[in-house]
Amino acid sequence: MAENRNENKNHKFHKSTFEKTTEDRRQKVLEVAIVEFAAKGYSATSINDIARNARISIGSMYSYFASKEDLFLTIVNNAYYVMENILNDVAVNCTDVFDCAAKMLSASRKFALEYPQLNQIYLDITTQALAQMSVRLSDKLENITPHLLSGIIRQAKTDGIVSRDIDEQVAAFVIDNIFMIYQFSFSSDYYKERMKIYLGEEKVNDIDQVEESILKFICAALGKR
Amino acid sequence: MAENRNENKNHKFHKSTFEKTTEDRRQKVLEVAIVEFAAKGYSATSINDIARNARISIGSMYSYFASKEDLFLTIVNNAYYVMENILNDVAVNCTDVFDCAAKMLSASRKFALEYPQLNQIYLDITTQALAQMSVRLSDKLENITPHLLSGIIRQAKTDGIVSRDIDEQVAAFVIDNIFMIYQFSFSSDYYKERMKIYLGEEKVNDIDQVEESILKFICAALGKR
Repeated sequence: MAENRNENKNHKFHKSTFEKTTEDRRQKVLEVAIVEFAAKGYSATSINDIARNARISIGSMYSYFASKEDLFLTIVNNAYYVMENILNDVAVNCTDVFDCAAKMLSASRKFALEYPQLNQIYLDITTQALAQMSVRLSDKLENITPHLLSGIIRQAKTDGIVSRDIDEQVAAFVIDNIFMIYQFSFSSDYYKERMKIYLGEEKVNDIDQVEESILKFICAALGKR
Repeated sequence: MAENRNENKNHKFHKSTFEKTTEDRRQKVLEVAIVEFAAKGYSATSINDIARNARISIGSMYSYFASKEDLFLTIVNNAYYVMENILNDVAVNCTDVFDCAAKMLSASRKFALEYPQLNQIYLDITTQALAQMSVRLSDKLENITPHLLSGIIRQAKTDGIVSRDIDEQVAAFVIDNIFMIYQFSFSSDYYKERMKIYLGEEKVNDIDQVEESILKFICAALGKR
């Protein structure tokens, strides 16, 4: 019960023993787990393999995490934390909705390129096989971008720089659909191949131009004035 | 070698024995496999469980499919066939790019609602853990929508009904990103929850209005004249 309250409040999915071990050991466990989960997916990854590759005993592993799911959720939680920081950074530093869209688009690509494995894990969470985990993440999942984006569009309506008859919730949803798949297009081979089919080899190599075209699309959609 | 040529040309991933069994038996095997793969994902599904639930021997199963992967690809192949038919239907029956976008958007939702399990499997294929399968599907994957959409936008540019400085490849990519996640928003619990966070409970229940707003967004983006 106490454990449960702790989980809901602070999103800690590890046991307190994990905090008491050395920083090196914590890093090693998380690094190995990220590599395994990203490459094989949650289901095909075994906590025993992670323990072996991190060179710790399975007993220690279970003293840190109650289950494979808890280890996985610890990583997902860290990934959301990284994303949240990037997004907050964008929010603080952008001048208006168009500048914000430009910065978010480029941040999506950079986040995918800098943390390909976290992105592969993120993609895995969206699948139906892992649906039961969404419940344990419910107040964390996708809770930053919706409010950030729709708030910025609402403000832009008030300021008269976008069309007043835009539904800011739908617009935020649609714009994030564009960003999300764009981000995946640098994360998984499937989406990489799909982007190449859409844009052609040449355009894929001129990504600044692609981002400019995507932004023109979004600006026009918002009725930029 | 002969088997391989057959696979590449006709996208048949089953053995010929599977064609010689009764229609009932074929249906049963595929139905059970779709349910299992959709709920558990590819990795966590065992071909033994599928055989047991379909009430056939594992020996028969391997006389139909060389591997779990081949059984999975048979289903994926059927799913692409269903999608292809829906898209061709849209392409034949639409009057212009805006009508086409409206019909594709609504077809995405209907396809997801009518075949939730095929959509869950589709989502699974996009993950990095199943990347090795993309190779065997390469000339099938995502090869309909890109040409359909960019062709229709190019035509609309020629006809002067959309802005002439639109990059039709980027526009097609972006519009399909919108459609794809919209489709997933009726397929997996994760995406359903995400759409609810974006749009709110009330709007989610008025889906005609949501689709109208998405279309307004796309029409404005294309510079509808």
